[in-house]
Amino acid sequence: MAHVHLDGELPGITGLLASYPQTGGPLGILADALLQRDDDLSRAERELVAAFVSRGNDCEFCTGAHGAVARSYGDLDAELVGQVLAGHDLASVPGLTPRLRALLTLAGQVRLGGQEVEASTVAQARDAGATDLAIHDTVLIAAAFCMFNRYVDGLRTAVPPDPSFYDLGADLIRRQGYGWPTAAH
Amino acid sequence: MAHVHLDGELPGITGLLASYPQTGGPLGILADALLQRDDDLSRAERELVAAFVSRGNDCEFCTGAHGAVARSYGDLDAELVGQVLAGHDLASVPGLTPRLRALLTLAGQVRLGGQEVEASTVAQARDAGATDLAIHDTVLIAAAFCMFNRYVDGLRTAVPPDPSFYDLGADLIRRQGYGWPTAAH
Repeated sequence: MAHVHLDGELPGITGLLASYPQTGGPLGILADALLQRDDDLSRAERELVAAFVSRGNDCEFCTGAHGAVARSYGDLDAELVGQVLAGHDLASVPGLTPRLRALLTLAGQVRLGGQEVEASTVAQARDAGATDLAIHDTVLIAAAFCMFNRYVDGLRTAVPPDPSFYDLGADLIRRQGYGWPTAAH
Repeated sequence: MAHVHLDGELPGITGLLASYPQTGGPLGILADALLQRDDDLSRAERELVAAFVSRGNDCEFCTGAHGAVARSYGDLDAELVGQVLAGHDLASVPGLTPRLRALLTLAGQVRLGGQEVEASTVAQARDAGATDLAIHDTVLIAAAFCMFNRYVDGLRTAVPPDPSFYDLGADLIRRQGYGWPTAAH
């Protein structure tokens, strides 16, 4: 059972967003701004950063949810996504471009703490073609999932009884963005 | 110098919010939803949780900024705020109510990770009078500052050259909320 009262049975963050709409609304708006944009990072790349950080933080719900969305766009190889999320050393994942490898390395440093970011990692990402906006957004997405993961696990929310929830959720997210749990309330 | 381009010379998160308004807007809205409310937690208590987590994460800018706002409301003793932010053991800070002590302990566990939250700490907070909403908001504020701290330090933003910036900022925040850096842009 979760540490606080939830309306209904929605798992992971979805029950929190629906039950506490005063903060759920702003969190959905933030998630859309971070993840539902295609510019210097693709939507699939944004979701992969989110899932990779969630995996590092052992957040089962967020890893499942954002891994499913990352796969659903189709522009990142599903096997590559699987290897990144299986915790393989990033250097040994074939098919990872130097740019995406450097950005994921950066995200992993942010996960450990703001002071853990190395200037050489930022320089590697830039040398591999990452723009300022891509570097900025990678750091902020990684930081934001240090929030979302702690929110989901710190309040001891449930994981979905059936993992097909993640694929259904990915479909909803692609069509409606991250506002749906609050809107459904 | 920060790791990414910033417009102008605003320190800490303020330069990031102004220079990257696509995410700065939603972050300001979230900060207002977390910190600019008086219900089951007072505004000063919300700011103290934010500053306490920032102190634990060694984020000088956020500790200075939110410590100044916490003091500025006047309903928490300035010496108490100073002792909490000096890193004293919470059990040895006189004047801390059992409720606020339990909520700060909870925030400290969230800071370490979502899995670090102990059911006994949640129970202590509840026994001392904390409502579900106060427990929920404490966990989410603590989680959110794990994001804000990593954003500020992961991109290596500057601290203000003059610490009076924090008191000026506290005055602006009390009057205008957290949207001002984006609005000023």
